[in-house]
Parts: sequence; C-alpha cells; structure tokens
Amino acid sequence: MVRLNCALALLGAASAAMATTVWPLPEKFITGSHNTAVGTISISAVNSTSYVLKNAISRYTGIINHESFLAPVDYRQGIIQTNGQLGGLTVAVDSTDETLCLETDESYVLHVPENGQATLKAHSVYGAVRGLETFSQLISANGYARVLRNTPIYIEDRPVFRHRGILLDTSRNYFPVKDILRTLDAMSYNKLNVFHWHIVDAQSWPVESKTFPQLTANGAYGPNMQTFIRYAKDRGIRVIPEFDVPGHTYIVGMSFPNIMSCMNKQPNWSKYAAEPPSGQLNIAKPESIDFTNRVVREYSKLFQDQVFHLGGDEVNRNCWNEDPYVRAYLAAHPGEDVEALLVNFYARVHSYLEVLGKTAMTWEETLFHSNYTPSKDTIIQTWIDEQSIPKTVAKGYRSIASPASSYYLDCGHGAWLSDFDGNSWCDPFKTWMHIYNFDPLANITIPAQRKLVLGGEVALWAEQSDETVLDSRLWPRAAAMAETMWSGKVNADGHVRTTKEVASRLHTQRFRMVGRGIGAEPMQPLWCARNPGNCDLNE
Amino acid sequence: MVRLNCALALLGAASAAMATTVWPLPEKFITGSHNTAVGTISISAVNSTSYVLKNAISRYTGIINHESFLAPVDYRQGIIQTNGQLGGLTVAVDSTDETLCLETDESYVLHVPENGQATLKAHSVYGAVRGLETFSQLISANGYARVLRNTPIYIEDRPVFRHRGILLDTSRNYFPVKDILRTLDAMSYNKLNVFHWHIVDAQSWPVESKTFPQLTANGAYGPNMQTFIRYAKDRGIRVIPEFDVPGHTYIVGMSFPNIMSCMNKQPNWSKYAAEPPSGQLNIAKPESIDFTNRVVREYSKLFQDQVFHLGGDEVNRNCWNEDPYVRAYLAAHPGEDVEALLVNFYARVHSYLEVLGKTAMTWEETLFHSNYTPSKDTIIQTWIDEQSIPKTVAKGYRSIASPASSYYLDCGHGAWLSDFDGNSWCDPFKTWMHIYNFDPLANITIPAQRKLVLGGEVALWAEQSDETVLDSRLWPRAAAMAETMWSGKVNADGHVRTTKEVASRLHTQRFRMVGRGIGAEPMQPLWCARNPGNCDLNE
Repeated sequence: MVRLNCALALLGAASAAMATTVWPLPEKFITGSHNTAVGTISISAVNSTSYVLKNAISRYTGIINHESFLAPVDYRQGIIQTNGQLGGLTVAVDSTDETLCLETDESYVLHVPENGQATLKAHSVYGAVRGLETFSQLISANGYARVLRNTPIYIEDRPVFRHRGILLDTSRNYFPVKDILRTLDAMSYNKLNVFHWHIVDAQSWPVESKTFPQLTANGAYGPNMQTFIRYAKDRGIRVIPEFDVPGHTYIVGMSFPNIMSCMNKQPNWSKYAAEPPSGQLNIAKPESIDFTNRVVREYSKLFQDQVFHLGGDEVNRNCWNEDPYVRAYLAAHPGEDVEALLVNFYARVHSYLEVLGKTAMTWEETLFHSNYTPSKDTIIQTWIDEQSIPKTVAKGYRSIASPASSYYLDCGHGAWLSDFDGNSWCDPFKTWMHIYNFDPLANITIPAQRKLVLGGEVALWAEQSDETVLDSRLWPRAAAMAETMWSGKVNADGHVRTTKEVASRLHTQRFRMVGRGIGAEPMQPLWCARNPGNCDLNE
Repeated sequence: MVRLNCALALLGAASAAMATTVWPLPEKFITGSHNTAVGTISISAVNSTSYVLKNAISRYTGIINHESFLAPVDYRQGIIQTNGQLGGLTVAVDSTDETLCLETDESYVLHVPENGQATLKAHSVYGAVRGLETFSQLISANGYARVLRNTPIYIEDRPVFRHRGILLDTSRNYFPVKDILRTLDAMSYNKLNVFHWHIVDAQSWPVESKTFPQLTANGAYGPNMQTFIRYAKDRGIRVIPEFDVPGHTYIVGMSFPNIMSCMNKQPNWSKYAAEPPSGQLNIAKPESIDFTNRVVREYSKLFQDQVFHLGGDEVNRNCWNEDPYVRAYLAAHPGEDVEALLVNFYARVHSYLEVLGKTAMTWEETLFHSNYTPSKDTIIQTWIDEQSIPKTVAKGYRSIASPASSYYLDCGHGAWLSDFDGNSWCDPFKTWMHIYNFDPLANITIPAQRKLVLGGEVALWAEQSDETVLDSRLWPRAAAMAETMWSGKVNADGHVRTTKEVASRLHTQRFRMVGRGIGAEPMQPLWCARNPGNCDLNE
C-alpha cells in the first residue's frame, strides 16, 4: 500500500527526538532523515460523504494552518533547511459508516513523503479522525514557516484499549457548556474516546427532563444536549451518561419526597451517606422503580450510546434499615429484607434497560457488595481497589479501570467539610507519573481475562472543582492515562516505558494543548521542559 | 464624629447574616434593621489631591456600579423592600501623604445611614482604600437593583497585623504581567498589603537589568515594572523584591560562570542543591560580592519599598566544600573556612544594603543556620518550622510567618521530578481550613515578643504553577490567611472564630471574587454554599 524507501529506519531509542512530537505514541513509527516544508495545508477526502470526516478535515485544516508550535525542548532551534515540500494530505476511508461504539475500528496508516502528497488511510472515519490528530502533531514551527521533520514518515497505529475515558461530575458543581466542549476538544488531542457524564448526583440534576421537568429547578443542560453529543461524535467520542441509583439521589427527593429514604439527615449524615446531603430512593416502594425506569427510558433515547451507566455506588443500608416505611414493609413481609429489596430494585431496573436494548454499566459495588448478580454483558467499573480489576475479569465480566488510588483526579486537595482541616479520603494527589505507572492489566495473566479489561477512565469528581479548575485538574494528567490506554505500557520490543523517558514528550503535548487553548497545568519549571534529563531524581 | 441611633446593635451571633457580606471581618461592626436602596453610586473625596485616593474612588465607583452580586446563601432571596435611599459616599482623609510602608495606618471608619449620604473617614489614603473595599462588599443585588441591608451600618476597622502578604515565585515559571496585575486586584479585595516578589531563582532571571543586561536572555519584566509598582501602590500594596543569594543562582552562572560554584551538577544534583539546577555564587571570590552589591544597588532603586529581601535560604555547604577554587583559597588561607566565607559574604552584602538606606529581610537560615549575626532591624521570614516564629522573636528579631506546613500554597501536588511518583516534600495540600486555623502567635506569651510578629505571607512557589493555575492556587486560600491577618483569630468578645462559622462568609467572598474575574477555586459543592451548616463533619 505504501512504498518505503531505504532511508527509513524503525523508531528506536536513537530516534527519540522524532518521538517527542506525538502523544500518545503510535504503534509503529518509521522516520527518515529529510525535512519537508509545509505551506498552507489542503486536506481532501477520497470519499467524503461522511459529515464526521468532513468536519474533522475542516477542523484539522484550521488547527494546522493556524498553529505555530515549537516544543520546549526545541527552544534553541534555528531555521531548519528543508529538502522537499508537502503537497497536501489525502484521506481515504474504507467505510463512511458513522456508527460509534465500543467495537469501532480506530486504526489508521499515515504516510508523509519527503516531497509531495501525504496519505492517510483508515477503515473507519474515526480512524481517520485519529490519524488527522497525529498528522497535526507532526508539524512544527520553523521560524515563521512550518516543517515536517525526519521525513519520510510512515505510521501504523491503533489503540491497545478500546475504552479510554474521562468521567466528569457535573452535579456537585456546574460546568458551563463551553467548558465541556473544550474538554471534548482536549480529549480528541489525546485520542480519548469516552466521555462518561456523571450528570446527576445528590446535589443537583442539571439535565432537562421532559418526563419530570420539576427535577431541574436550578438550571440544566437543555436543548444544547444534542449539539453536545454531536460535537463529541465528530471527535470520535462516545457519551455515556450515568444516572446513579439508588443512592446519591437527594435531589430527586426535592421534587418527589414520597419515594425517598433518609432525606438530608443532619447533623449525623455520615450514618446515612458518604457525603451530605443523604437521601436514597425508597426501594420498598414500586414508585421508586417506576421513577427510575421512566428516567432510564427518557435518557436512553437522548444519549444514543449502546452503554448506559446505572451507578450503584456507595449504597447505604442503614438509610433503609432506619426508614419507617421500609421497616413497616418488612414487618408486613416476613422473609424479605433490605438486601432482597435492593436485589429486586436492581433486577427490575437492569431488565428494563435490557428491554430498551442497552448495555448496563455499573460501579463495582453492584457486583461485589450486593447479592444481585448482574447479567454477564454488564460492564463493571472498579474504583475501590486496584485488585477489583482482576477480580472482575476472573468472574467473567468486562472491566473498566478507575481505581481511586491512581485515577481520581480530584484527590489530594484536602477534605472539604467546613469544620475539618485534615486530608481528603483519597489523598495523596495523583501525579501524572503515578497515573502513567498504573497498569490496568497487573495481576491478570490469562489472555481471555486480559481481553475483558476494556480500558479505563480517569475521574474528576467535582466537590472541589468547577470551571475555574477544570482544565488544570484534567490536564496533562488525563493525557498520561491516554497514552497508557492508546499505546499500552510496553513498546513493540518489550520495553516498558518509564516516566523519565516520556516526560519530555508529555511536556511537548502539554505546551501544545496550552497553545490550543487548554489550560493544562505545568509539570515542572520551564527550564526542565527545555532541558530534558536534568530534572530527575536519579535514584 | 458619627451619631449612632437607637436601632443599632453590636454585631453578635444573632446578626451573623449581616456578617456574611464582608471579608475580612471588620473589627467593630454595628448594624440596624433597615434596608437602603442603592442607585448609581457617586463617590466624592473631601480632600482629593492624592492620586491614590482619586484612583481608588474611580476604581470602586466602577466596581460598585457594575457589580450585581448575590451571595450563594441568599439564592432564594426575593425582592427586599427598602426604607431609604443612599445618597452617595463622601470620603475624608486626615492626610494625603502617599507614603506606603510597614507603619502605614490602614484604619477607617465607615457610616452608612438608612437614608442619605454615607461617610468614610481615614487617617491615610490607604485607610480609605480599605474602607472603599468594605463599602463595596456591603452592597448586594436586589432583583435588577441594588441594596444595602441592615442599615444604618457603622464600622470601625483596622488590621491586627501590619504585614499581610503573598509571595509569588516568577522564576520557576513565568507569569504574564496581566496575571500579576489581576493578583494585585484580588489582594486588594482581601485587604492584603504586601506582594513579595520572588522574582529570580536558579531557573530564570525575569527582570530587566541595566547593570547586567545579559541576565535576562529569555524574556523579562521590563519597562512595565514601574507601571506594576504604581498599580500595587494604588491598591495599598507594597512590593518587596527578593534577590536570593548566595544559593539558587544557577541562572547567574549562565552569564557569569567565573563567579559560580557547582554549576548544574548531574545526575547527583541533590548533593549540591535542594532542586536542579545546582549553582551558588562562589563566596571565595570578591567578584561575587561585587556582583551582588551591584544587583542590590540597581534594584533597590527600582523597588522603592523600605524593605529588600536578600534570600539566604537552602545554602548548600557541600557545593563549596567540593569547589576547586574554594578549596585552593582555603588551603592558601589557613584559619578560614566555608562558614567564615559565608559570614563575610552576608556581612558585606547586608552592610551595603544598609548604606543604601534599606532594611534587610531574609529567610530564617540566615539567623538560625549560619554563624552570621544579622543586625537587629533585619526582618526574619520563617518557613522551616512553626516554632521558628517564637524562636525569632525570642531573639529580639521581627518575624514574618510563612511556615511551609501551613502557608505554602504549592504543596500537595506531588513531587515533580520526572522519574519519581511519590509525594511532594511538603505534602499534604494546605486547605483553607488548615490555613485559617494556623495561629502565628502560638506559643508567644510575652507582649513585647508578640508585637515583633509583623504578620505573615502565604507562598506560591512555581515549580508546578504558572498562569494556568495562578488564581486557583492562590484563592480562596490566600483569603483565609488574609482574614486571620487583618481580623486576627479572636473576636472582640474573646471568641476564637472557627472555620465552621466563617465558611459561609468565605463562600460569599469566593463567589464575589469569581464575579470580579478572579478564578478562585470552589470550596465545596454549590449546594453546600447555598445551605450553610449542612456540610460539616460535626465530630
């Protein structure tokens, strides 16, 4: 398909300079020794009936023609002499089908000659989207002009994990639409493909409901929701909504107090909930199941993704044990207990979701801390313990890794209750190095079980976050996970990449993102970014 | 001077609602039971020859007439009926002298009647600046109009500590001028009065030098420096520059390698410096002293404040012990040693600063970890140990409290060396509650020694900070210190304020700052800000 000439050499330690420009690292990356001048870019599609592809081409044409980026490590670089001139980029896809799901093929092949037309080939439009991002990252400033260094370049690339996500909690604090859209842009710069929208929680229900309009008293994401989902799809990002039941539902009780238990118990809320305000759906009432299923029905249409997240975390049994209605119900129904009521609740809600044709995703408590047995196609998101990942796949379930100990981006900012000056429950702060070092496949040796690890999500819970810190809490740390999810942790030659050797390239990605309007926080003093290898502990 | 009517009552727990609007808390705060309508504000000065005062009046006229602020706790508030109409505000100062120093009087008296003209009286123009901030915080939105609640209001106010500062490190990473100016705005909203500019360090020298133009190879604060100092003065903020010698000076060696020791030792930099790159002025060379004194001479003119900070922290003896030139010098001068050279260096530099008419400020190592004896008017800034404060004043020195354990705002984001995924040396993160609970007068009982504690500074070291996180790292945590510095920790009735009882008022201040364009990070879920007392641990 692509002819390689003799000047090409496999990327190894010796050509690390080239590798500094692309994040996450492509699977196969072959470079030459020429430099190619880049004028105003023209990108064309061979078969362009896909709007996703058309929009991506338009987007990257804009990014590339406006960007003048020099990596910090290159700050002393003078003008580079060029040997050829890029003619443009031609994109060809095997299919213009725009279906976006877990199985979507994101692979691509990119060839940039030392002179003339570059080509990008992909099976799906989403593979083309990924290849366009890579292509944009290959170009750097050359004085007032632009250059592709180390041409010809040949890249074959595809992700190691299929589910690479960010969880954003928009309930504890509200995030304006423009900030979420910017987050989707930033995700596409890192080839992330799942936006897990923890859209409601105890504190607010910021999504318009036609079924229950009273839920959204204080502002909500409304008609812009479709725009939002389309914006994500254009970037190859699935939007998985989470409606967390039966816990974390105080806000429901503000409209429907009759279906609730333990509403805002004070001052001893900690007996009833993980954080204030307490409140859980009353699982002894059929109305709670009816409410939940109507919510699921409405939002499973709005959010078109195959997967629908039903929460299920941090359920508090004491909330129901002390509830007068639950107690009366159990007294009248000998043989039943709170656990049986919870199993019934899950069974009714999960089976209704199945009727709607959706796949359930839940937090690990549903599997490990209740008597309920989810159906085998349920996707289990683990957070409590890193060992929950091997445990999940050992039971035959598919796993999404979100261990709080490595992937919770909100941690480390101290406890937030007004009268307590101690640490947060998930201290310390998760550095990008800590995130990069986490291996979701650790302690899983059986190949069939390793395949059940679909990927991972970093999570930004928003008790102490809103738009003032969104970018800096997410980036560049989410980018660190993005590389381990796209490229894995191991090079083709078996070498496990270290944070020391990828630091310079992540600096480059961080500064590129800042240039594109993402307020990613700095990793080190600028001097360190400019002088790789000088800011290591060396122990 | 001001006639109080019978409707006035001393602020106590019962009128806490009123107190929610002003941060930091005024010393004496008497409120009534009326509500006064506020139209477009006109502020006039009785004696207006001071540009500081004129500029402040212009600034606050703009802020007040554009602001429409409702505290989160008041979000359910309907339209308040008013009983009177504010006529305007008249400002009178006893003196139009614009001298700004440690001894500047910042007291003021503010009277807002239920109807008619409000008056603000102060001894100095800077007292008027503080009173204008308070006045602006008394006004809140009332539908599409504005209102002063609980009038008449009588406030007598003055700071408990005279030195209330923020240290910003602009060397590890660069901060654009506009971001520093915004920081000065934010400081004035919290009545902070010292901007400690840690302007240079090992990694860069971002301030123009006419004496040594070669120091600023990579961009520097240049002609805008005067604008900057004037901007600070207009807000009653002193600018104290720090030129840290003899350690933390690698960047000097990039221009003057001949006066340096242990330049960028790799990979074992940790034997020579607290962080890379290592490099200290060679104290065996008279040229080092000459260089330092010429730096001091130039910048002590540029920065007009009485106080000049000479650094002196984290000096590494091993750097000199292994230096060939130092070793040869000591071999040729029996009886001398590294410690004697250091004492000589300090003596020469400090005495030259004295000749220039300035007061020295240094880090605590100069006093506690060297054989040098600073002159008694040296101001000692402590950071290593909270007990260094009582030790400093016990020796008869004036103390500025900056304990890393409470006041270092950069801590808690993990270590930043590329190959180490552990914690930062000063973990954990310092929450606003932890900062508020710190008492700089702890363990100091003798009144004369308590008076030697001039105040404190929170510090933002910038290894992991730049403009992307400036606002969120500083605020609202610097505001927490600001109140303990302005209002002390104890009410007039002896009650020690708790974080639980001030949380709602700090939420108000945080949201007010966000409204004024300061990206202060959120303290809690919005629900907590709106429902005070519901997000406490209650243990």
